[in-house]
Amino acid sequence: MAEDNKKATRSHSHKRRTSKKRPPRKQIDTRIFALGGLNEIGKNMYVVEHGDELIIIDAGVKFASEGLPGVDYVIPDYTYLKQNSKKIKGLFITHGHEDHIGGIPFLLQLVPIPFIYATPLACAMIRRKLEEHRLLNETKLIQIDITDPGWSMRTKYFNVGYFNTNHSIPESIGIVVNTPNGRIVETGDFKFDLTPVGRAADFQKMSFLGETGVDLLMADSTNAEVPAFSISEKKVSATIQQEFRKADGRIIVATFASNVHRVAQIVDAAVRFNRKILVYGRSMENNIMISRKLGYIKCPDRFFISNEEAKHLPDNEIMIICTGSQGEALAALSRIANGTHRQVKIKPGDTVIFSSNPIPGNQASVSRVINKLYRAGARVLENSAISDLHTSGHASQEEMKLMFLLTKPRYFFPIHGEYRMLVIHKHLYEQVGGEKDHAFILSNGDSLILRNHEVFPGPRVHADDIYVDGNDLTGLSTAVLHDRQILSEDGMVAVLIAMDSHEGKLLNRPIIMSRGFVYMKDSTDMIREAERIVQSKLNAELKGKTTFASIKNTVRDSLTSYFHQKTRRHPMIIPVIMNKKV
Amino acid sequence: MAEDNKKATRSHSHKRRTSKKRPPRKQIDTRIFALGGLNEIGKNMYVVEHGDELIIIDAGVKFASEGLPGVDYVIPDYTYLKQNSKKIKGLFITHGHEDHIGGIPFLLQLVPIPFIYATPLACAMIRRKLEEHRLLNETKLIQIDITDPGWSMRTKYFNVGYFNTNHSIPESIGIVVNTPNGRIVETGDFKFDLTPVGRAADFQKMSFLGETGVDLLMADSTNAEVPAFSISEKKVSATIQQEFRKADGRIIVATFASNVHRVAQIVDAAVRFNRKILVYGRSMENNIMISRKLGYIKCPDRFFISNEEAKHLPDNEIMIICTGSQGEALAALSRIANGTHRQVKIKPGDTVIFSSNPIPGNQASVSRVINKLYRAGARVLENSAISDLHTSGHASQEEMKLMFLLTKPRYFFPIHGEYRMLVIHKHLYEQVGGEKDHAFILSNGDSLILRNHEVFPGPRVHADDIYVDGNDLTGLSTAVLHDRQILSEDGMVAVLIAMDSHEGKLLNRPIIMSRGFVYMKDSTDMIREAERIVQSKLNAELKGKTTFASIKNTVRDSLTSYFHQKTRRHPMIIPVIMNKKV
Repeated sequence: MAEDNKKATRSHSHKRRTSKKRPPRKQIDTRIFALGGLNEIGKNMYVVEHGDELIIIDAGVKFASEGLPGVDYVIPDYTYLKQNSKKIKGLFITHGHEDHIGGIPFLLQLVPIPFIYATPLACAMIRRKLEEHRLLNETKLIQIDITDPGWSMRTKYFNVGYFNTNHSIPESIGIVVNTPNGRIVETGDFKFDLTPVGRAADFQKMSFLGETGVDLLMADSTNAEVPAFSISEKKVSATIQQEFRKADGRIIVATFASNVHRVAQIVDAAVRFNRKILVYGRSMENNIMISRKLGYIKCPDRFFISNEEAKHLPDNEIMIICTGSQGEALAALSRIANGTHRQVKIKPGDTVIFSSNPIPGNQASVSRVINKLYRAGARVLENSAISDLHTSGHASQEEMKLMFLLTKPRYFFPIHGEYRMLVIHKHLYEQVGGEKDHAFILSNGDSLILRNHEVFPGPRVHADDIYVDGNDLTGLSTAVLHDRQILSEDGMVAVLIAMDSHEGKLLNRPIIMSRGFVYMKDSTDMIREAERIVQSKLNAELKGKTTFASIKNTVRDSLTSYFHQKTRRHPMIIPVIMNKKV
Repeated sequence: MAEDNKKATRSHSHKRRTSKKRPPRKQIDTRIFALGGLNEIGKNMYVVEHGDELIIIDAGVKFASEGLPGVDYVIPDYTYLKQNSKKIKGLFITHGHEDHIGGIPFLLQLVPIPFIYATPLACAMIRRKLEEHRLLNETKLIQIDITDPGWSMRTKYFNVGYFNTNHSIPESIGIVVNTPNGRIVETGDFKFDLTPVGRAADFQKMSFLGETGVDLLMADSTNAEVPAFSISEKKVSATIQQEFRKADGRIIVATFASNVHRVAQIVDAAVRFNRKILVYGRSMENNIMISRKLGYIKCPDRFFISNEEAKHLPDNEIMIICTGSQGEALAALSRIANGTHRQVKIKPGDTVIFSSNPIPGNQASVSRVINKLYRAGARVLENSAISDLHTSGHASQEEMKLMFLLTKPRYFFPIHGEYRMLVIHKHLYEQVGGEKDHAFILSNGDSLILRNHEVFPGPRVHADDIYVDGNDLTGLSTAVLHDRQILSEDGMVAVLIAMDSHEGKLLNRPIIMSRGFVYMKDSTDMIREAERIVQSKLNAELKGKTTFASIKNTVRDSLTSYFHQKTRRHPMIIPVIMNKKV
């Protein structure tokens, strides 16, 4: 940042350094790296290590996408943490979203984590997760006191504090890690909402950090491509109320269950327009329950009614709030749209409001749900046509600049985002005076060394993606994934060969089985012909000296070309040899 | 539409009717239906039938999406056309996009089409397609003379004309079908561009049609959700020139190869800023060649250079135009971004311009390409951040209203679009005075009857989707697709059982093979255990009387539960019994 700032930082840090007795500083570096969250959106996990101490910030999961058939989750490789588990002093959670807490159940199965520090709402969400996985005894959950700005956690080397931010979930915080080599600030997911629903961001604390010296800022890059300043949650709230005013049938609102302030605004709108509330979707029910307990949703009990009670009310006194804003196949809204929801059937006059944007990759499924809702006669309001039905939880470009100006970091490490977002975030840092070679575009596993308030690149740690299918935490091998991809493209053909290798002859006609290749009943001629081809090829081959490997190759080669000629497809050919017991 | 309009239409039609000698009208209905293009984007195909005559409008293909593993194309079911092939008088093509001409090679293999009528550019594109598929002798290509507004094709019952429209390809036309029961207008894909590149839309002819009576309008609904008026191609052209002015390294532009006017504007910008042109991507090369021949791209030969010549030029004198704006894996831009293109490597200083928007479903792959371009050091300009680098080829809402006001249709049949788009288009029709029950939201196969200037719903024809994988035109069965889906989720396990049914005993230990399920080398214990389970279950079963079907069930049930317990996965279990020859 600007030169005078750097001087201020240095002198302050110096003062702080001399005022406390710490182990000799020059000899130990502080190391910072990501195990997840760089060059991707999701599975955030950052590590700060100093000597025999280590703290973790966030433990997220990423939901697998289309390119990974049959994979449920992607998690970071926890090997480094496992190998260094004795150093771990705690896991700090910035907020309760899945890409920040969803990895905890996986992590706890592999790595002992003594303490998890999180705000009350995030604690409640994590506790529920741990209960589900029966892992509650594996760690100790400690609430960060968000009413005490001076709250901190101290270890031999670290002094860890927090500051309040705005995001699409309440109680989001940034983490401050004071180390013997200098101060690190990690923003978590953040935006600046100048008229937020809920508490304001901690401008004073961020300014104080900037004033007293931030050596390394790690900041959320998700919306680095979005110009200007994000829309306030209050504006969204006004738009929703406006649509409530217009609707004269039932209102069905789908939004993110974790966006507690949004849910609270929707509940408030229902109360204001005298509509009773039905809640559908497990995560929506859970989060409303937790949020009411914590006081984020304030609404008299009598407004929450059962499906039975709703039957006696006119349509314009009913509001349904549910999950499924991303078109998820099993979520409440998808079942409502499909006509397979047990309680709710769409009827003409219904207004369905999407208080959400489709996340990239979900557009097609959201579009399918909307078509079905139209077909059933509903009016559908989406953010793409009616603006301000939703706002992002992430900082746009001007907010990112504001974060730089408040915290005045000497070095910058853009996190949370795909490669181009990290690069654009770095450009923004330079635009407000940051030095080009003071910003680092890294990959998961790359490390930075913080040494006496200077930052430079360090050695790598292992940080591959681990694909989780079912409950297999060792991860799915890429060979298995590759097979699935081939199987899904053209199916497979198994060829069974019973032979007597001693006599050098086939014991039976080869048998061909297939799945996902051609419709067997319509293709008997082709399959019989393929069996004949294999038989004659093998009879010829068995006259001379051969090996099982060579036999398998013969089967593969002859069928690959035959099937391709007949169908232009390339099924996976699996020769199986059953040799006579000798 | 408005009442006076309807009267005008009726009286005119009456005059026309009495002035010509036609077969008795009351006895024969005109039937209109879609075989593709409703409740979807793609594979457009519409049919107008009267007595023993039938004409087809467009024959498109749809590219398969993620939900259809291994499927290459989706085409309409041509069975109805095959059964009524003697009636076919011709196929009319509205323009040369794949969703309007891509089905022709499939269609010609199954159904004899005597004539295809298309504008010169579309004819050139179709001819190339037919040459590739060696189908040039299967039909006769007839050029519609786009310089003669009076051009028409007459049969016993039909008189078919055209009018010029604007779209993202030159020579797009709407089709006018005069039948003994009244007049049908089909817009093709259209927009109104008031400052188009190329020729203007035929306002006078559309107005004349409206004035003299349109009984049924079939109009493009693709952008029914988009408010206001679309951006002019001239504005895009200005934005592109602006970016050319700023760039000081190489410029690489990716756009749709078929958007000939856009390509022409990009070529013009290159000439203006004195950059020589390199063309990459087969469809880009083909379309530039065709367009230069037809005069749509005017540029001296010396501007098109070879890769060898480019080596001797400074970077700021080079412009590359290529395919791949949708992130297609094998297209030129993707290979450039991957570093696998033989001629072009990205270097810092390069500017890559996407003159396109990602089509829904392609966002993830486009995003991957952009990240790779950033990584290689390029500056990347996209339409999402810099507006007006692209404009849609489809009418926004105000343009749709303008089409209604010009053609004044008595009945309306919204086409080209997903369900919600058809519904919104119908609402727009009502907003400009159309009667609610004069608009029809149909599905592929639903028909309309046009009888003496009245329109009402008719009987259905068969119009399922046909999935094409490789060269198999009979279509892929849903059973095969279902198998592929299971295989791609959890893989498969084949269990080979050699037995002697006569003796009632196993001849060998069961052998288990798997693909896409678990990594076999790491799972030998589990597989051996599974083999033991099958063996003991079957030994028990073979003691009593049993059947092959029952044995297969035993294998399936025991392994399904064992594998699910061990892995939480549900692979496809395929028992194969090899019985001893008797």
